[in-house]
Amino acid sequence: MEIKKIRIGQTITDYYFGASLSQLKNVADKKHSIILTDEHVFEACKSKLKGWNTIVIKAGEEYKIQQTADTVIDSLIEMEADRKTTLIGLGGGVITDLAGYVGAIYMRGIRTGFIPTSLLAMVDASIGGKNGVDVEVYKNLVGTIRQPSFLFFDTSLLQTLPTAEWQNGFAEIIKHAAIKDAAMFRSLKEHDAAWYQKKKSELAALVRRNALLKTKVVQLDETEQGDRKLLNFGHTLGHALENQYELSHGQAVSIGMTYAAHLSEALLGFKQATALVKLIDQYGLPTYADFDRTKVFDVLKHDKKRERSNLHYILLQKIGKGVVHTLPLTQVKQLIEQI
Amino acid sequence: MEIKKIRIGQTITDYYFGASLSQLKNVADKKHSIILTDEHVFEACKSKLKGWNTIVIKAGEEYKIQQTADTVIDSLIEMEADRKTTLIGLGGGVITDLAGYVGAIYMRGIRTGFIPTSLLAMVDASIGGKNGVDVEVYKNLVGTIRQPSFLFFDTSLLQTLPTAEWQNGFAEIIKHAAIKDAAMFRSLKEHDAAWYQKKKSELAALVRRNALLKTKVVQLDETEQGDRKLLNFGHTLGHALENQYELSHGQAVSIGMTYAAHLSEALLGFKQATALVKLIDQYGLPTYADFDRTKVFDVLKHDKKRERSNLHYILLQKIGKGVVHTLPLTQVKQLIEQI
Repeated sequence: MEIKKIRIGQTITDYYFGASLSQLKNVADKKHSIILTDEHVFEACKSKLKGWNTIVIKAGEEYKIQQTADTVIDSLIEMEADRKTTLIGLGGGVITDLAGYVGAIYMRGIRTGFIPTSLLAMVDASIGGKNGVDVEVYKNLVGTIRQPSFLFFDTSLLQTLPTAEWQNGFAEIIKHAAIKDAAMFRSLKEHDAAWYQKKKSELAALVRRNALLKTKVVQLDETEQGDRKLLNFGHTLGHALENQYELSHGQAVSIGMTYAAHLSEALLGFKQATALVKLIDQYGLPTYADFDRTKVFDVLKHDKKRERSNLHYILLQKIGKGVVHTLPLTQVKQLIEQI
Repeated sequence: MEIKKIRIGQTITDYYFGASLSQLKNVADKKHSIILTDEHVFEACKSKLKGWNTIVIKAGEEYKIQQTADTVIDSLIEMEADRKTTLIGLGGGVITDLAGYVGAIYMRGIRTGFIPTSLLAMVDASIGGKNGVDVEVYKNLVGTIRQPSFLFFDTSLLQTLPTAEWQNGFAEIIKHAAIKDAAMFRSLKEHDAAWYQKKKSELAALVRRNALLKTKVVQLDETEQGDRKLLNFGHTLGHALENQYELSHGQAVSIGMTYAAHLSEALLGFKQATALVKLIDQYGLPTYADFDRTKVFDVLKHDKKRERSNLHYILLQKIGKGVVHTLPLTQVKQLIEQI
């Protein structure tokens, strides 16, 4: 187990790489910790959770809402959680977002730690302190930005992950490569998801590389004034699609990246759109899609990245070099209609 | 109108003293602002609110709950509030606490400003960035600490305040004097609430002095690691009483201060308990009370100030000198039973 102490803003977060869930007792005190998890993860990790206090909620993005936060808070009261309690989120992005949010508002903030169990949560969702819940069709409309006290990476937890979950993770990994890491883009081209699933140490190294890549972006810009916006590559359109259609986050982001690549082509002369679309496809993710432009742009109007009638849209100059562009909503709509 | 820029933590808050509601347009942009207020305040200020976007909720502490925050968030979505919007709380402590909380979590934080309309809100509740909602009997169990961008003091708004509201304010003013300001304690002894109600400039000066006193305490200790705890003088027992009995905040805190004065006598040899109790009484506030010890201590067990079985209890060495003591819950209970 490797420990890395990383400062983001005022908080120091301990990153435990190459960890195993059975070592959690060395990181958090059983008596003063409460683990928040979902039914699926609880079932899968049951034997390792003996003796830990747990709050188990239903699994699924549809439960990432205020009402669930309310019931978690009720459970914390019942369990007499106080300012010395650590709330540990064990699960995918829904769980770490919820745990981070409840931990930020319960008693105006208690200690939190995350144990991501999905590839997406390991490389993206659990990192950077953004937390929250969805409101109606608007993702993460309510939440805070607050760093956890620790992040605990046990890649053996990924073994039972369904295919769709692997895809979700790889969508964000491809995103990282596209905006910041051309070398990783090249090595991703040489393999596919099935290869990484078999190669334990290569997978652990990929997770570590992506977790640290995202961390570095967040470190330099915790409150998303500049560079952190790059992480929204594929997400502006992606979020709008995700809530209008039955798409996973990874699928929606992949379609978003595809259209953003073509916008980059039209606006910045980006030349590697075909290569990016090919890589997305290679990892089993969708690219082009038929969607109701009017409906989706109606959701975009409410996107958090919107300021008045402009969108902060993330484009690529080349692979490894993302840039933030401010575009009128109407122009984005026009260009996307042409693709 | 006097403007004072005050830094607390990472935020600079503009304090507007001697302001008038009609000058608000010079401080906030009508087009990008939304005023959150309650039915009573809206009715009283209607003519001055023409042309402002408003969200009006029902008046009363019983609406300081998550459900109200949820409906305010729904209204913000409908009004297309975005990251450039300022949410302005116009009202008493319930409104500024709610506006601060919703402003902290909507889109992970938008700009907020407070216009306190009660004496309590002006000298206490609107200052220091603590916000939140009540959960069941637990006051402010959920919330954040986040400073507003501006505070706007128009003491003419106090003219229509009912007597009970004046009392609430004076309870906190007496608290400030007791823990930090012996000179103010002496001048309070020479007057009463009715006198301040008549003397406009003395009232404005008293509000300013108390607002700045609280601000200074918060400035030195935003996250309540040390000195800020002093502001809880009278509040530990006070909060427990407030939710078990039909008491106003000021009444509950006054009873809390009375018992804390006697605890200070027993534990620290504090000699001015009688003088403090007399001043509380002089401002029309209650002192000794018959309450169900078992029920109230059951609530105390869940108090945010509790760490395991100890309470951080605020005591007085002398008037103007409050101190934090860590006391076992059982000892507090025993001593209070003897008073």
